[in-house]
Order: sequence, then C-alpha cells, then structure tokens
Amino acid sequence: MRVTPISGFPEWSPEGRIIEQQMIEQLRLSFESFGFAPIQTRALEPLEHLLAKGETDKELYAVQRLQAEEGESEPGLGLHFDLTVPFARYVLENRGKLQFPFKRYQIQKVWRGERPQRGRYREFYQADIDVIGRDRLPLHFDAEIPLVLHQVLSALPVPRVEIHVNNRKLIEGFYRGIGVDDVTAVLRAVDKLAKIGADGVSAILIERVGLRSEQVQQCLALAQIRTHDTRFVEQVRALGVSHPLLDEGLAELSFVIEAASHLPEGAVQADLALARGLDYYTGTVYESFFADQPEIGAVCSGGRYDNLASGGKLKFPGVGVSIGLTRILGILFDQGALSVSRPTPTCVLVALASEEKRGESTAVAAALRARGVNCEVFHERKAFGKQIKYASRRSIPYVWFTAGASKERVHRLRDIRTGEQFDVDPGTWMPPEADLKPRVTGVSEPSLRAATNQGSSSI
Amino acid sequence: MRVTPISGFPEWSPEGRIIEQQMIEQLRLSFESFGFAPIQTRALEPLEHLLAKGETDKELYAVQRLQAEEGESEPGLGLHFDLTVPFARYVLENRGKLQFPFKRYQIQKVWRGERPQRGRYREFYQADIDVIGRDRLPLHFDAEIPLVLHQVLSALPVPRVEIHVNNRKLIEGFYRGIGVDDVTAVLRAVDKLAKIGADGVSAILIERVGLRSEQVQQCLALAQIRTHDTRFVEQVRALGVSHPLLDEGLAELSFVIEAASHLPEGAVQADLALARGLDYYTGTVYESFFADQPEIGAVCSGGRYDNLASGGKLKFPGVGVSIGLTRILGILFDQGALSVSRPTPTCVLVALASEEKRGESTAVAAALRARGVNCEVFHERKAFGKQIKYASRRSIPYVWFTAGASKERVHRLRDIRTGEQFDVDPGTWMPPEADLKPRVTGVSEPSLRAATNQGSSSI
Repeated sequence: MRVTPISGFPEWSPEGRIIEQQMIEQLRLSFESFGFAPIQTRALEPLEHLLAKGETDKELYAVQRLQAEEGESEPGLGLHFDLTVPFARYVLENRGKLQFPFKRYQIQKVWRGERPQRGRYREFYQADIDVIGRDRLPLHFDAEIPLVLHQVLSALPVPRVEIHVNNRKLIEGFYRGIGVDDVTAVLRAVDKLAKIGADGVSAILIERVGLRSEQVQQCLALAQIRTHDTRFVEQVRALGVSHPLLDEGLAELSFVIEAASHLPEGAVQADLALARGLDYYTGTVYESFFADQPEIGAVCSGGRYDNLASGGKLKFPGVGVSIGLTRILGILFDQGALSVSRPTPTCVLVALASEEKRGESTAVAAALRARGVNCEVFHERKAFGKQIKYASRRSIPYVWFTAGASKERVHRLRDIRTGEQFDVDPGTWMPPEADLKPRVTGVSEPSLRAATNQGSSSI
Repeated sequence: MRVTPISGFPEWSPEGRIIEQQMIEQLRLSFESFGFAPIQTRALEPLEHLLAKGETDKELYAVQRLQAEEGESEPGLGLHFDLTVPFARYVLENRGKLQFPFKRYQIQKVWRGERPQRGRYREFYQADIDVIGRDRLPLHFDAEIPLVLHQVLSALPVPRVEIHVNNRKLIEGFYRGIGVDDVTAVLRAVDKLAKIGADGVSAILIERVGLRSEQVQQCLALAQIRTHDTRFVEQVRALGVSHPLLDEGLAELSFVIEAASHLPEGAVQADLALARGLDYYTGTVYESFFADQPEIGAVCSGGRYDNLASGGKLKFPGVGVSIGLTRILGILFDQGALSVSRPTPTCVLVALASEEKRGESTAVAAALRARGVNCEVFHERKAFGKQIKYASRRSIPYVWFTAGASKERVHRLRDIRTGEQFDVDPGTWMPPEADLKPRVTGVSEPSLRAATNQGSSSI
C-alpha cells in the first residue's frame, strides 16, 4: 500500500490528538455551562443548498456514489463547508420538536476545497455556538455571544484573543447615506483593507465600483474607526452621514459593546473595518484575533443572520460564532506553543513475570482500572529490563512488579523518570494527580486569566 | 430553504446527541483505561486504496471539487468506508515516529453508499480499537481484544453482548483438507448461512462453486460447531479432516477462547460459522451480537490482518475490532431502550427581574458556573410565571430568583418538578448529583454488570 499524504488534510500524532481531544472536551464543558445543547448534522447536504448559501468562491466538494445503481436518481450532494448552513436546515426540519430560542453547539469537521497554504486546511474542525429564535430573537443574544466566547477561549491554553465586532446595518446605512448603490461590492472591497491597503481599496472602489473620490474617503474613514468602548458612535457621527439604517446599526453595536464593558479592556472592541465575506449576515458580525499576533488573521468568526432559516411565513433569526479549532491548533503546533506530558493514556505498565503469572498481572491491572488508573499488562514474557525499557520508550511513568515476581512477595512500583522503586498495595495505590492522565500545557496569560477567574492554562 | 432529509443519514435530536456523546465519552475512558491512544485520520483516502482493500460490493462515495482549477490534476478521492484501512495507511506513513506495538482507538464517522434499510446507514460512527506490531504481533493481542471489548460494552447502557470468535486459518485449513480449491468462494457462501439457510448454501456450493455433496456436508458440519469453551477442538477433530493450517487455526482459536474463560459463560464463544466478508483478515475473526436479539445481526466485528499494512520488507500485522455505535444507537432508540433525564445541559435558569438587575443575575450565573453548575440567564424581562414556564418547557430543573427581585432580599430557588421553593446561598448551593448533568439510563444487565464490576447501567 503506497502512502500518499494529501495536502490540506492534517493528521496529528497521538500527542496532537490528545491535545485536540482535551480542547474539544473543554469547549464542550464551557458551551454546556452556558446552556448550549449538543447536536451533530450529517456531513453531506444537497449541493443546491450549499451553493445558494455559500460564497460564490467557496470551493465545494461534490460527492457521489462510485457505482450508482441504474434508474436511481440521486440528488447532487456535497460536503458541508461550515456548520451554520446545515444548522439552519436542521432547525427548519425539526422546528416542530425544538424549544425556542434554541441554543446549540456543534463540533464537527467541515471541508473546503481551497488552495492549501500555511494555516489553511481542506478538512478542519469547527466548534460553533448559535442561538436561533422563532420569529424574533432579542438583541441580548448578539451581546451574549462575545461574553460566552471570551469565557470559552479564556479556559483554553491559547494566546489572549480580542473579539472585534461590527454591524452590517451600520455599514450599509452609512454607505447608503453617502449615496452608494452597490453596497455588496463596496463591502467586498473594504474587506480587503488589511490585505491590500487603503490605496488598493481606493483603486477598486473608484475603477471598478465607480465611486467618487469623496465617497471613497468616507468609506475609508469609517473603516479606520476602532474603539474599546462606545466612543465609535461620536466618531461616526463626526463624519456627518445620516441614514435610518445607520442609526439602527449604531444602537445595536453600542448595546453589544456596552454589555462587555466589565471585561478586561480590549477583550471586545468595535472595529468598523470588519465586513465578513459571507452574504447571509444581516446585523452584528464578529471576528477574533490573537491579540499579539493579529497578522495570523481571524481564528473565530460569526454574526447575526435573520434570513438564513425561513420556511414559509416563519422566520428563524439566529446569531452565532465559529471557533476555528484546527486552524488554532495548527498555528500553535507550528509555534511549539502546546505540549502534553506523555503521548499515551497509560499511567502504569504492569510487568509480566511469566505466562503462568499473567493472571496476577491482569488482576492488578483490573484493580487499578476500577480506580480510574489507565494501565496495560506487558504482552509477553521478556526480561524485566526490556519491559522497563518498553515503558520508558513509550513514556509510561510507572512499571508495576507483582508480588509473585519477587522473593519478598510484595508488590513493587518503579517510577521510570527517577528510577526509584517502592512497595505498593494494589488495593489502594493511586498516582499523584498530575500523573493520572496526559496533561496539556500551553500559552499562559496570567493577567487575563486572573481577571476572568480561569486560573490555570492547563486543561 | 427547502428541507430534504436524506435517507440513510441519521440526525439525532439534542437528547439523542447527549446520549451518543456520553456513550462516546464512556468508550473513550474505557479504551484509554487499557492504554489505547487516540488518533483520527482524514475522512478522504485515495480511491485506489479504498478499492484495493474493500469488498468488491462495498459502495464507495467518490469526492471531487466542484470547480477544479485548470491544469490541476487531483488524485481520485473517496470517503473512507471503515477505520481499519485508513489506520493501516496512517501507521505506514508514521512508522518512523510510532512506538510498536501501537495501540490506538479511533471514533469517527464512516460512509457507505449501501441501499438504506432498517438498521443500515450511509453515514455512521464506528468506534475502533486496534493493535499493530512491527514485523510480528504476539497472539496475546488476539486474545486481549475480546476481553477489552467485553469490559467496554459492559460499561455501556446496552443489552448483554456475546462475542463470537472464529479463525480463518482453521476454516481455510479445513477446506483445503477436504480438497476445496476456491476457499474464498466457499467462505462467501457459508457467510450467508444465517440469511439463506443450509439448503441455500448447499445449492450455491454445489451449483456455483462445484463442490461434491460430501464436501458440502463437511462444510456445513463445521459451520454448525459453536461452543462456550474449547470443546470445539474435539468436535472438529471428530470430522476427521487434517491439514497443517487447520492445526494452527485450532491452536490459535483455543488460545483466544481459553483466555476468556474467567468471564461469564458465553460472553466469548467459538462460532465456526463465522467467516467475515472482508478479504483482509488472515486469522482470528470476531463478531458480536446482542445475546437476546441475535436476529439483529452483528453490532461489532473485526479480526486479525497480517498483510493490510506492509511497506517494502516491513510488515505491520494488526488485530482489532470495530463497534458499530450508530447502529447500536439506532436499534436502541427504535426500541425506546435508552433515555436521558433532560434534553438540555442547563441545570439552573437564573430569572431576570429587570434589565437593570441583569448584572445580579449574571453574577449568580458566573458563581454557579465556577462550581460546575450549568446555567442560563433568562434573555429578556418577562413575568416570572412566563420564565418558569419557559424552564418547564425546556425541562430545566431549577429556576433561581435573585435577592434583588424579592422583598426579603434573599435568593430563592424553585424546583420546577415539585414547585417547592427554598432560600439559597449563591456562594455555596449545589444541586443533588443526579441533577448536575443530563443522566443517561438504559438497558440494565445486573448479573453481568456485577460479574464485571461495572455496577451501574447509567453513564
């Protein structure tokens, strides 16, 4: 069997997977602590849905049976590229059974056929939270999302994150107020600000969108506004533009920013350059960055969508955010910023004295397991020196020698790291807490963590 | 957005997902207690690998980008149909970094484009454990797999499972001993015994495979042997067939069955009708059934594969088993045999007295969360009666009224189920253990559980 790594489809070592799994477990606990219920949706959706709701340049993976049976007409299917579009479909499909507002989290892999490059994957985990209401969804939920996200990220061993917030109504109202017709075209151009700079955006707005020079100046002035509190309101007002939609957007964004005022400064900030590519957002939009490495780009993003899920007369407005888990892990693995105390769940290797005494080793292992201590019995009779070497090579911290193996008829335990040996009782012995499971450690942000009551950077 | 359920792609309610998630968590803990390390592999593999290793009738899903860029040549990719073939590829790819024997578990979705029918899915979870050695893998691991599987299944809230074991060498040696050339054709026919009966199998063996009547009798006689201990050996010997491969198979199967002799009778049994469709098995094969509902078919299966992973001169023999998690859940959901105490992780709804007093509610919620109590703050100002009704509708067991909301300035807690209210201290109150998280309960098998020290059927 030839071995063919496929670009853009990351696979971690067992160490990497242990870290990923503990991150997922921590996300799960955090999401549940705020009352989000778990769901999963199928990986495949009808292509027509994906195409209708995705960005035009989103690269879809189409899926079909290799040997479709004759006469069988299959709908075109594709792998989902995010978890929001499938969730909206799930809500419509189950609207009779769900209680609204429905708060759910969803941690699954998604696929995008983008050109693979550093930090971009074709298969990756997203961890999403969303709230969907029936007919209406109070703005309170727009304000709650960054608070939850801040708590959730503070509990993970990742660098400090800043959550940037903007509002589509604010931008659209402003653009309309200065006489722009093709709002989407301007949004798309301004979205490239960080990448191509003000001159690049100006050129697009003048040459392709056909804006006048004063309009371009106003658009760029708006995009430069970024405040840690609600002072963005007066800065926008100072630009002298007025439109009812602008007023609505300013009020909504103020509400969201104000609700986060008890968090450390800058944790949640207004950033009027933010546009978000996806068409389905209708109000609040979020993007999050590592505070000290903004050049990496967004690691979480999301927003408010009033029209994504609608069936007949019923509307199901929603708001949510997606954490780019694989992206975050990929970055931190590259930086060597995450580590785990050992690459195996095994805490104790029970040595095997002889095949005849396997029963004794198995009994010790069963007693340890019953107390939550992960262990293995060595698989064949070999010199104890070789069994110790095996444990050492696999970073298993302890080797257990059963009573039957010693002249003194006592159980002995060896700490592989120090070489120390001591007598132990199989009915009571427990390892120190730190040795029980592989421990993940990462980037520590003591000031932030203290402020949010999330003391430790380990999970 | 039209709603289009896709046949064969199950999606659970939040209740269903809570149960599935707790099952996965329990599987993870059980697998780790035996020292299996976690990995995940990408969902896509080159089609040529999948085709080379799969059954011919396995229906593959091919995957390709909807808009492949010009000049870009992409290898044909497909969704994996099991976790064994990808794992063998992963081991070859990472053989320089892994420690052998390498024990891993893997819990992921797989896809098969089979005709959907009751209990068959096109997208489903498998939970696999495998051990792969370099060059050699002691038979001990063949014997350990059923022991682990028995423990793992006993810890889940599922009906009692019997693990049936056979050995490919035994069958092949027997067939060769009676002069059969096309062993695979006979295997495939005998594999249908449960489905089409002895007459059906006879017809195929005589008409299509070209066996003589005495040969058919011998094949059927072998397939009827099923013992709870190693008595199958004398029963096979009584058929008067001899072949070196048969001897080898009998010895191997005896070793595996003997190693399980301390388990409750029938937990692991020799079943010489077992063949397993997949071509890659070379020795021990396993299939597991619900003891009281064998007609449902196998819920776990696996075996020994000596040639699946081989690179140049190096061989990586492996053995493992796959638990059909989605299949088990689907069956038990249909039977109403699993339930969960509530459909939401939320334990406490903190009522909102007014927008001005939201801070007080948020503070209570934060204090509860810090102690591991999942809670939500009600999202808008409404009469308390409506907030209570909301909690009741969502099956949230407690509603908290903050001190600021009452004349007496005390915090009050209401148990939604009894209507009782009592004074509480936000700094110390904890719910009874049973209310902390949603509790899954299922089929209880007290006798078996007592025998294996797995006291409770709840997880």
